[in-house]
Amino acid sequence: AATFRASEHQHIRYNPLQDEWVLVSAHRMKRPWQGQVEPQLLKTVPRHDPLNPLCPGATRANGEVNPHYDGTFLFDNDFPALQPDAPDPGPSDHPLFRAEAARGVCKVMCFHPWSDVTLPLMSVPEIRAVIDAWASVTEDLGAQYPWVQIFENKGAMMGCSNPHPHCQVWASSFLPDIAQREERSQQSYHSQHGEPLLLEYGRQELLKKERLVLSSEHWLVLVPFWAVWPFQTLLLPRRHVRRLPELTPAERDDLASIMKKLLTKYDNLFETSFPYSMGWHGAPMGLKTGATYDHWQLHAHYYPPLLRSATVRKFMVGYEMLAQAQRDLTPEQAAERLRALPEVHYCLAKK
Amino acid sequence: AATFRASEHQHIRYNPLQDEWVLVSAHRMKRPWQGQVEPQLLKTVPRHDPLNPLCPGATRANGEVNPHYDGTFLFDNDFPALQPDAPDPGPSDHPLFRAEAARGVCKVMCFHPWSDVTLPLMSVPEIRAVIDAWASVTEDLGAQYPWVQIFENKGAMMGCSNPHPHCQVWASSFLPDIAQREERSQQSYHSQHGEPLLLEYGRQELLKKERLVLSSEHWLVLVPFWAVWPFQTLLLPRRHVRRLPELTPAERDDLASIMKKLLTKYDNLFETSFPYSMGWHGAPMGLKTGATYDHWQLHAHYYPPLLRSATVRKFMVGYEMLAQAQRDLTPEQAAERLRALPEVHYCLAKK
Ligand SMILES: O=P(O)(O)O[C@H]1O[C@H](CO)[C@@H](O)[C@H](O)[C@H]1O
Ligand SMILES: O=P(O)(O)O[C@H]1O[C@H](CO)[C@@H](O)[C@H](O)[C@H]1O
Repeated sequence: AATFRASEHQHIRYNPLQDEWVLVSAHRMKRPWQGQVEPQLLKTVPRHDPLNPLCPGATRANGEVNPHYDGTFLFDNDFPALQPDAPDPGPSDHPLFRAEAARGVCKVMCFHPWSDVTLPLMSVPEIRAVIDAWASVTEDLGAQYPWVQIFENKGAMMGCSNPHPHCQVWASSFLPDIAQREERSQQSYHSQHGEPLLLEYGRQELLKKERLVLSSEHWLVLVPFWAVWPFQTLLLPRRHVRRLPELTPAERDDLASIMKKLLTKYDNLFETSFPYSMGWHGAPMGLKTGATYDHWQLHAHYYPPLLRSATVRKFMVGYEMLAQAQRDLTPEQAAERLRALPEVHYCLAKK
Repeated sequence: AATFRASEHQHIRYNPLQDEWVLVSAHRMKRPWQGQVEPQLLKTVPRHDPLNPLCPGATRANGEVNPHYDGTFLFDNDFPALQPDAPDPGPSDHPLFRAEAARGVCKVMCFHPWSDVTLPLMSVPEIRAVIDAWASVTEDLGAQYPWVQIFENKGAMMGCSNPHPHCQVWASSFLPDIAQREERSQQSYHSQHGEPLLLEYGRQELLKKERLVLSSEHWLVLVPFWAVWPFQTLLLPRRHVRRLPELTPAERDDLASIMKKLLTKYDNLFETSFPYSMGWHGAPMGLKTGATYDHWQLHAHYYPPLLRSATVRKFMVGYEMLAQAQRDLTPEQAAERLRALPEVHYCLAKK
């Protein structure tokens, strides 16, 4: 029998954080691609557009006028999926028809007053300001809601409807599905092994090195062993940190700098403004009295769809929607490619 | 406090089949859409293209020449994600790094010799031939593999790389993730309530009627209470059937006819060739001795992405990838719209 080689032989891998499997079939990269090609973003975005509701001084859908902000800017989403005061659907009359109340708040956070920048093109102090704003919105909304989901949809391919650099914050009265899975897995790992799952995981990856993309004094970036998206990464603090607000000033500065490096590598990979959805996961917030959430480790997931070039993405469709996630290159191959990329942004290098 | 109305008040719903929650926020349909617009498929597909590897008589990537088939045609995928003979990755040295062997087979099935038709434009006997081919490939591959996943990716938006009407069949040595979830849920429901989850569910929907789209002597089509995609549907037999090969000739004819009706409604909704990924789920196949799988009910899932028009889709991105699925119209609203649509295809009606 042949010796197993991950880059040649299909196999399945387990994601212990989200309790899921992925099928890894790296030999599939050899197949020709004749499917959908994404439109290349050629049009340049103006730095300021008075008609763009995210710009300083612009009027939003509800008639409010944005301040002339010069750093980050947080405001209520004008079309929120979660509102503070929805009535309860009441008890269900059948176990197969269960509905429950959902309350919450949806906010939008602009990263910068200019529409023509993205995080990797911002300065480290400007990114640090975004991190501070993330920490404080987590603290503020966490006083009322058990889950505060910060996420960024970047690029039209990821359903982003406005090029202005921004993210969203959706806080909810319930623990969303994926939060519940991560809660269960981290809880059970902690009770079996006496330490947080992701703390041990980061330590192992730092030893093995093959999936590491970047490391700094306080942070690690790696392509997880169980990555689903071609160039998916996991961003982890090196010490045990449960939530964004706990980060020290030094850890925040270091985070700003490693984020700039990672996102620069992403843009450099296919010399395009790399689309992705990303988000932070930290321990559920206060409400449950007595819970210390020591099993939780703060982390960010980056889920970028591009596979082969700026215009050819991975589709998570038929088999993936009906059976199981499937990937076409190994996490080790992806990490190696990301590691090899320069830390200077291609747009700046060419100047 | 206001009275709860599903179409106005956000809430969460539980999917007992896949053990997942969805956030329903129907009021979000009011927001304007300024994001990505999908390219409209205007180019017409030629009926026969000798260079298209799915056409009768064409040469495939591996040099084989297709027969001049005139019904369905099944062949091995030239770029399979699963192969019969991959070596085992061996035992893992750490609980956070688990990999397992995966063996299998990937096939492609053409539905029809012509490239310019789709299932709703085919005749009922032609669709019946597809159903027979599905049943027999399930039986054949099921003799060796515990899971046989039949799925169709339709449309470029769903990663389909060839317009010729076809589906895929991936059989695997392992139970994929979603199969495992459905196995667990149906097993536990059956042991608690003494009957199959989906049999009781179908019966309830037939009584309630508000999510029903189509019903026939042997089949039901409904928008499930927990639907995630805007116009997602579930296709169910009315009697207890575990797998495709068990379907009687009368049930197969009736299935062909209800599929034609459903897919015609889908195309009529936005007057476009409606993209979707669909697939069949039936009880795992033979290998496990003694297991009768009485808790399983055969069903097909249809996952179509379009939301507002032929060019505006629902994006399952940031919040959905990081936290929980979210939908913008209620399943009841979706069912009502589908119900109201004609059963004559808009392309034929206009002639
Ligand atoms: O096999 P195809 O049609 O080339 O590929 C398509 O379906 C596969 C199975 O869902 C996916 O893994 C691919 O991402 C998608 O493009
Ligand atoms: O809120 P936005 O940016 O308009 O919308 C985008 O992000 C949301 C949260 O992930 C998704 O539900 C939408 O489908 C997507 O288009």
